[in-house]
Amino acid sequence: MSEAVVDLNADLGEGYGPYTLGADADMMPIVSSASIACGLHAGDPVIMRRTVREALQHDTAVGAHVGYPDLWGFGRRPVQLSKDELHCFLLYQLGSLEGFLRAEGASMQHVKPHGILYNEAARDESLSTLICDVIHSFDAELILFAPAGSITADVARQKGLRVAEEGFADRGYTPQGTLVPRGQMGAVIEDVRQVSERAAELARGQVLSSDGSLLELKIDTICLHGDTPNAAGFARAIRAELDAAEIEVRPVSTFLKESSSGRRHS
Amino acid sequence: MSEAVVDLNADLGEGYGPYTLGADADMMPIVSSASIACGLHAGDPVIMRRTVREALQHDTAVGAHVGYPDLWGFGRRPVQLSKDELHCFLLYQLGSLEGFLRAEGASMQHVKPHGILYNEAARDESLSTLICDVIHSFDAELILFAPAGSITADVARQKGLRVAEEGFADRGYTPQGTLVPRGQMGAVIEDVRQVSERAAELARGQVLSSDGSLLELKIDTICLHGDTPNAAGFARAIRAELDAAEIEVRPVSTFLKESSSGRRHS
Amino acid sequence: MSEAVVDLNADLGEGYGPYTLGADADMMPIVSSASIACGLHAGDPVIMRRTVREALQHDTAVGAHVGYPDLWGFGRRPVQLSKDELHCFLLYQLGSLEGFLRAEGASMQHVKPHGILYNEAARDESLSTLICDVIHSFDAELILFAPAGSITADVARQKGLRVAEEGFADRGYTPQGTLVPRGQMGAVIEDVRQVSERAAELARGQVLSSDGSLLELKIDTICLHGDTPNAAGFARAIRAELDAAEIEVRPVSTFLKESSSGRRHS
Amino acid sequence: MSEAVVDLNADLGEGYGPYTLGADADMMPIVSSASIACGLHAGDPVIMRRTVREALQHDTAVGAHVGYPDLWGFGRRPVQLSKDELHCFLLYQLGSLEGFLRAEGASMQHVKPHGILYNEAARDESLSTLICDVIHSFDAELILFAPAGSITADVARQKGLRVAEEGFADRGYTPQGTLVPRGQMGAVIEDVRQVSERAAELARGQVLSSDGSLLELKIDTICLHGDTPNAAGFARAIRAELDAAEIEVRPVSTFLKESSSGRRHS
Repeated sequence: MSEAVVDLNADLGEGYGPYTLGADADMMPIVSSASIACGLHAGDPVIMRRTVREALQHDTAVGAHVGYPDLWGFGRRPVQLSKDELHCFLLYQLGSLEGFLRAEGASMQHVKPHGILYNEAARDESLSTLICDVIHSFDAELILFAPAGSITADVARQKGLRVAEEGFADRGYTPQGTLVPRGQMGAVIEDVRQVSERAAELARGQVLSSDGSLLELKIDTICLHGDTPNAAGFARAIRAELDAAEIEVRPVSTFLKESSSGRRHS
Repeated sequence: MSEAVVDLNADLGEGYGPYTLGADADMMPIVSSASIACGLHAGDPVIMRRTVREALQHDTAVGAHVGYPDLWGFGRRPVQLSKDELHCFLLYQLGSLEGFLRAEGASMQHVKPHGILYNEAARDESLSTLICDVIHSFDAELILFAPAGSITADVARQKGLRVAEEGFADRGYTPQGTLVPRGQMGAVIEDVRQVSERAAELARGQVLSSDGSLLELKIDTICLHGDTPNAAGFARAIRAELDAAEIEVRPVSTFLKESSSGRRHS
Repeated sequence: MSEAVVDLNADLGEGYGPYTLGADADMMPIVSSASIACGLHAGDPVIMRRTVREALQHDTAVGAHVGYPDLWGFGRRPVQLSKDELHCFLLYQLGSLEGFLRAEGASMQHVKPHGILYNEAARDESLSTLICDVIHSFDAELILFAPAGSITADVARQKGLRVAEEGFADRGYTPQGTLVPRGQMGAVIEDVRQVSERAAELARGQVLSSDGSLLELKIDTICLHGDTPNAAGFARAIRAELDAAEIEVRPVSTFLKESSSGRRHS
Repeated sequence: MSEAVVDLNADLGEGYGPYTLGADADMMPIVSSASIACGLHAGDPVIMRRTVREALQHDTAVGAHVGYPDLWGFGRRPVQLSKDELHCFLLYQLGSLEGFLRAEGASMQHVKPHGILYNEAARDESLSTLICDVIHSFDAELILFAPAGSITADVARQKGLRVAEEGFADRGYTPQGTLVPRGQMGAVIEDVRQVSERAAELARGQVLSSDGSLLELKIDTICLHGDTPNAAGFARAIRAELDAAEIEVRPVSTFLKESSSGRRHS
């Protein structure tokens, strides 16, 4: 009997014009949610429509991967914008993806901040508030993807937004549930077998932390990287492990409960 | 008793970052419809939100001014795109503006192709069809702005879209109802008094053509230029003339009949 | 007998495509040095060539106005680049302007960092060093424009570069020779007569500081703003005052002594 | 004894920010000339400097790969520019690359128009003239890369520029010495052995044409593609074949005679 369920997500549609980035074709059949770049840090209208259509063909739920307006820097560095300006740039991106979804008779599932915006917001209440306000003003039913246990997740729930708490199967966790910072021992796990097993553990809500203790961590969605070497290999291994463990992989919107409920799937 | 009614429209929000273009602040209180650039040939998210808000403050209806993706060329030259690619770029623009409107609790009235796209489509059935298909896929209730009597207007009606037929008070018309080509005698009318009077004539459906004959021309909306020297002066004079002539100036959505009805206001 | 000599400079060629910024046509006959934007924070190849040609017609010396790669932000905000990346972006700009000068049989006089880069460097030795290294690698004969008394000026001289120390006639100076920070009393001087007189004082090397004491400040070039309201009016008034005071206005390369000499014109 | 000599060239540095395109690292040791994108259709300042440095490390000669300003379209489609505007955009690119070469104490060998510009010019005298005029105004010693027997090559010689006539080992030639148009039988040769042999034939000045006759065709430089699947494999095979045939591979500047001499190496 399948008791556990989890969403698998990847960042897709990150090319631009002649340029490709990431193994979109390989990833799409594996994931249940796709976060699609909206043309400012990556992506363009042609790639957006194609990626939306591919997602719908695979019953993959679609979200807006919103980032700083910085194609050259790929949204990996902050762009100095006033709160008000950033608000406008994020709203622009939500709308632009909505156009493609509406034209296909589909709707948006979620919003995931990209790159440095995701990381900054995770520890910055005011930035998290801004992101939530943008989403609220556009569509209060959207689900926000945020690091499990982050400030972003807390702020979103306070604002009445649904949150998908996100975990990383290839990253180590401290006993407190935060990611082991890159550069430290155990920050990144490179063994594909170990990563797959951790994915299953994350889906079940318990994972071994960096000091060997068992960490309880409710995870709604696991992030699969699409732009690392052998990204597709890792993704397939993770999916196979989840299937073998009879953990169902479904878009987070199909199982996420109300935002007010504190914990959403149990 | 006021019998005649007409819409006055202008292209607004055409700046970019530090750059301004056009007399937006002067034009907004005069026009009843604003076509707002969507960030690809001009405009940016910050300018878009500001322009949307200013429009709503003045009860000015808002439309998407969609163009070729070409900031440097300002959408005044064609960009070589496949039909499919152009479709994506136009849809992207509709969505991006929709985001700002939705966040303000407002909705989009119309779509106006910009620059060379407007001119090309006016005489190209296949391009007009593409534009109509994009609009249909996004929101079939949107009104398309097209030159009065153009191929674009015909195609749109066949497609079941509502069309606002657009007239130009500062341009000469041939007896056949087409614009006297630029460069020919009588192409552009520069006298502000004459332009104002022609605006009133256009609103009433009859205007003197280039050979002196009276041309019947049903016009729903008159285009006011915002980026010419003394644009605001012309706009004020036209508005004053219409007011004096008791011609009501209202957003075209408030008086445009069904697309199928052939003629819409009478 | 004319004893004093000074350079007048302005930032020109700051438009982009359809957009204009600043009163270039008015400023060019007034200034003796033009700093031309190189296409990354402003400017484009067409504007660059036109501005270079106009400068040469007026015997105005030409410099590269180099900035952060950020058209939307106009180089007014820092872009997060590694030192090595910034080096590349600056070198790119020097080369691009050089092409237009070489094609006209002319040569570059100076380099002026733009906007936030100029301000950051003025108090940052490592950034000043980077800028000097770029210039050195490109052409060690170029003159660097830097705030009078700034770290940039010191670093440049240590590196063996010639420096034009720049003054601002419309800004107040502290008794220590630094600018009164914007926002404080006396930071900006708005009276055109007073600004003109201060320009003459700066050219002669003595100006009244914010506490009323006389400040000795050797200035090689005075910056005229081209993008403020009535920029041309201020520029003409300053030029007229200098002419009346028999202070010669010439490109800084015609009177600047060796970099090693500490003080350059006396 | 080695009698024959030929240049091998490839288009390198075609990435942008996070995006890569082509197998630069594999190609650089194989080719004798590198055409480097200058930031308008591809490339950026960081990639330009890196590619210049790698070229110099391998004693590979460097040229400017100049194209239409169109990152999204990658210079594969024409951009509608006036002759004068295109002149400015090309000159800008020459200068920008020159900066990086000068900083390394190196100099530019050649100019190669990119993509559609190369193809358009090959059959358009006026466009070829424009390109030659740009080069002349910048540095009359530069070598222009042009299709063997093209209008571009003729115009360049008339203008007194040196030309490297370029051949394609993977393309079929008509008995008249033009390329068999893509889409026709024999347009593209896919067998690596055959391509290698044709490279050697081209270097020796005789190649089998599409009707089986022997075509005399003086080729100075052979273009190796860097962005096709197995590009590096083809390049290595061609280089090995030339080495085995004792055909020397050297930068074209080391053996190209005067432009006026009609034929340059014999």
